[in-house]
Amino acid sequence: MIFAAIMGYGVVGSGVFELLESNTQTKLSRQVKVKRVLDLRAFSGDKVETCLTHSPDDILNDDTISIVVEVMGGLNPAYAYTKRALQRGKSVVTSNKELVSVHGSELLNIARANGVRYLFEASVGGGVPVIRALRHTLLCEDVYQIAGILNGTTNYILSEMNSLDLPFAEILKQAQEKGFAEREPSADIEGFDAARKLSILLSLSCGKYVNYSKIPTEGISRLSADDFAVARSYDSVIRLIAKAEIKDGVVEAIVAPMLVQEGTSMFAGVKDVYNAIMITSTATDNHMFYGRGAGKMPTAGAIAGDIAEILSGHEDDLKWSPDEAIMADPMDIVSSRVLRLSGHVTDKTISTLENICGSQPSVIHSPTKGQSVYILPPIKEREFLYLVNTIQSDKGVKIESTQRVFADR
Amino acid sequence: MIFAAIMGYGVVGSGVFELLESNTQTKLSRQVKVKRVLDLRAFSGDKVETCLTHSPDDILNDDTISIVVEVMGGLNPAYAYTKRALQRGKSVVTSNKELVSVHGSELLNIARANGVRYLFEASVGGGVPVIRALRHTLLCEDVYQIAGILNGTTNYILSEMNSLDLPFAEILKQAQEKGFAEREPSADIEGFDAARKLSILLSLSCGKYVNYSKIPTEGISRLSADDFAVARSYDSVIRLIAKAEIKDGVVEAIVAPMLVQEGTSMFAGVKDVYNAIMITSTATDNHMFYGRGAGKMPTAGAIAGDIAEILSGHEDDLKWSPDEAIMADPMDIVSSRVLRLSGHVTDKTISTLENICGSQPSVIHSPTKGQSVYILPPIKEREFLYLVNTIQSDKGVKIESTQRVFADR
Repeated sequence: MIFAAIMGYGVVGSGVFELLESNTQTKLSRQVKVKRVLDLRAFSGDKVETCLTHSPDDILNDDTISIVVEVMGGLNPAYAYTKRALQRGKSVVTSNKELVSVHGSELLNIARANGVRYLFEASVGGGVPVIRALRHTLLCEDVYQIAGILNGTTNYILSEMNSLDLPFAEILKQAQEKGFAEREPSADIEGFDAARKLSILLSLSCGKYVNYSKIPTEGISRLSADDFAVARSYDSVIRLIAKAEIKDGVVEAIVAPMLVQEGTSMFAGVKDVYNAIMITSTATDNHMFYGRGAGKMPTAGAIAGDIAEILSGHEDDLKWSPDEAIMADPMDIVSSRVLRLSGHVTDKTISTLENICGSQPSVIHSPTKGQSVYILPPIKEREFLYLVNTIQSDKGVKIESTQRVFADR
Repeated sequence: MIFAAIMGYGVVGSGVFELLESNTQTKLSRQVKVKRVLDLRAFSGDKVETCLTHSPDDILNDDTISIVVEVMGGLNPAYAYTKRALQRGKSVVTSNKELVSVHGSELLNIARANGVRYLFEASVGGGVPVIRALRHTLLCEDVYQIAGILNGTTNYILSEMNSLDLPFAEILKQAQEKGFAEREPSADIEGFDAARKLSILLSLSCGKYVNYSKIPTEGISRLSADDFAVARSYDSVIRLIAKAEIKDGVVEAIVAPMLVQEGTSMFAGVKDVYNAIMITSTATDNHMFYGRGAGKMPTAGAIAGDIAEILSGHEDDLKWSPDEAIMADPMDIVSSRVLRLSGHVTDKTISTLENICGSQPSVIHSPTKGQSVYILPPIKEREFLYLVNTIQSDKGVKIESTQRVFADR
């Protein structure tokens, strides 16, 4: 019999409790019993009541507890609790992407030094076993491209904005009412959650610490119904894409909303709270994992999978160096874009576009009257900013939006 | 240093040789050296020449060789060689779906009894790590649905038939010229290859031997350009789908071409030689794996992954009982269908359709003049056969085709 504890009895914590108390248990190689659940709240009448505690010491100082499930989220106090648990010889399983992204290297080292494990399958992709797949690929291949839809909340909002044709604020409100978005939604809608997840996948892939705050990150809150209309007239949907390339040890990464063409990219079919992660490696080439990116039972299932791994005595292959990876200059990132202009587009602006693009940019039918929509060829961020400055010097024209276009390769 | 041998120097075998001789090697926890390669042919001037042998005994009787990669394909002599290798204390890694499908249970038992491994990631999905993912899910969940595009050759042919609007025989010829189809293509185009792969996934999932020859299997060779035109007018593509459900220990499985609606199912976006496998399990719910289903390096990468697993000392969790699983009566399989009729559809036929379907079936615009196309609601195979018999008794009308429609759930 193995004793476990759960820190945090929220959506995921209660899912883990339910799963470990259910007969799924019979599939694990040894029986796991939840001895303690930490939460500041009381849960009168809930079946958790008998093992509930408000004191972390009841878990951290109890040497009969060998596995701690940390699903509190946030850096503090999760960081201190995780460190203490590992130092005390307990394995820790978590869904906390913020903590893994920032302190992963150190916590993995502490785990190793104490002969225990620090596992975080649930921190990226919810129920999608992407970290396990990535670890496996890394055993004998190099991973040089990662692209994904890593945040379920924004993907739900983007799917709804596209089909209901309502403004962002309205859809966000509905998503919050349905429990698909948090009351404080900025980490999701501004892209930071996706950047953290991407940084975890990148740290594993390149073996060095990828600081998520150095990934250029753009959220979805400024998208308008017009942007979706333009996307549709280009047979595309808008997705919040996290993508990166590792080349000669240099990491180029970005998180931003991008147009994804239907029938061309698998990402166009990823709707609602689903996530998808495409990995490109030296032998296997491009392969993708798709599934529920969030939700009580899928995330709990990922945590149970990590517990199963601890019980199986699987080799410890998770690590990255605390040294920061070299990041590419964000100004060098190349994107194709859809440029939407209103007002009077003068010959001067057209000739600027021609100069930057090398030839006349393609025009697509504008769904909004009085606007012009151009597809720009792939150019570097610095060239694009120069273009924006030049257009802005033309007083009669206004830049309405500049959506990036996702290219599968 | 670990010595390995490769049996079969075809496309996959030469890929494995290349991969193990390359610097990918440096990522494996111990160095692996290919000591012998078995093939009946000579390869003058090829770098394999120095270790080439025509005698299996040079491998099977050499106790310094601890890992054998069997990529000969077919039941014989692969079965005998694999058995001898395992009994002699060598681990065997294979891409041979036929052998795993038929003798997997026995070979896994022989491996276990001899303290070695029998691994076959490359047997299903080529480079897509579906078996590894499935094994992981099975550690703490039950899998109750599997659906997939498991054969790259047929998916390539179907993609090309759809976009080029040429007949099956013509596309098959082109595929053979390009090396995407074998000279003897029946295992692929008649669906047996997909059925074998499905049987491997099912045997793992239900823990009992699923005999692929008991899976109702229909190939793609009878599809016509008209079938694709009907599919398109229903916003669909045609895919060879292998799908199964495990319910109360009973396995219901089928392999058949099916209409897959664009924008509804992720499978619609799976083109060319790509494979995709959707697994539905108790906690994680539905999740999908996608990637190159065949090809030299992706398949070689899957084999290298199995070798890495042998080196890592990963727990042995692959098994199924030799007892045959209970299969559902094929007559009970429920499908929705698109029925295409030519000739004069009498009131009698319409009323038969109404009787069977419970209401008037939906009509879709027929792309071919003089034909009528109906969408039938989900009915059992036996009801459908009764419907076919009744329609055939109506002399003026001819059943042109009866394509199944894939439903994601």
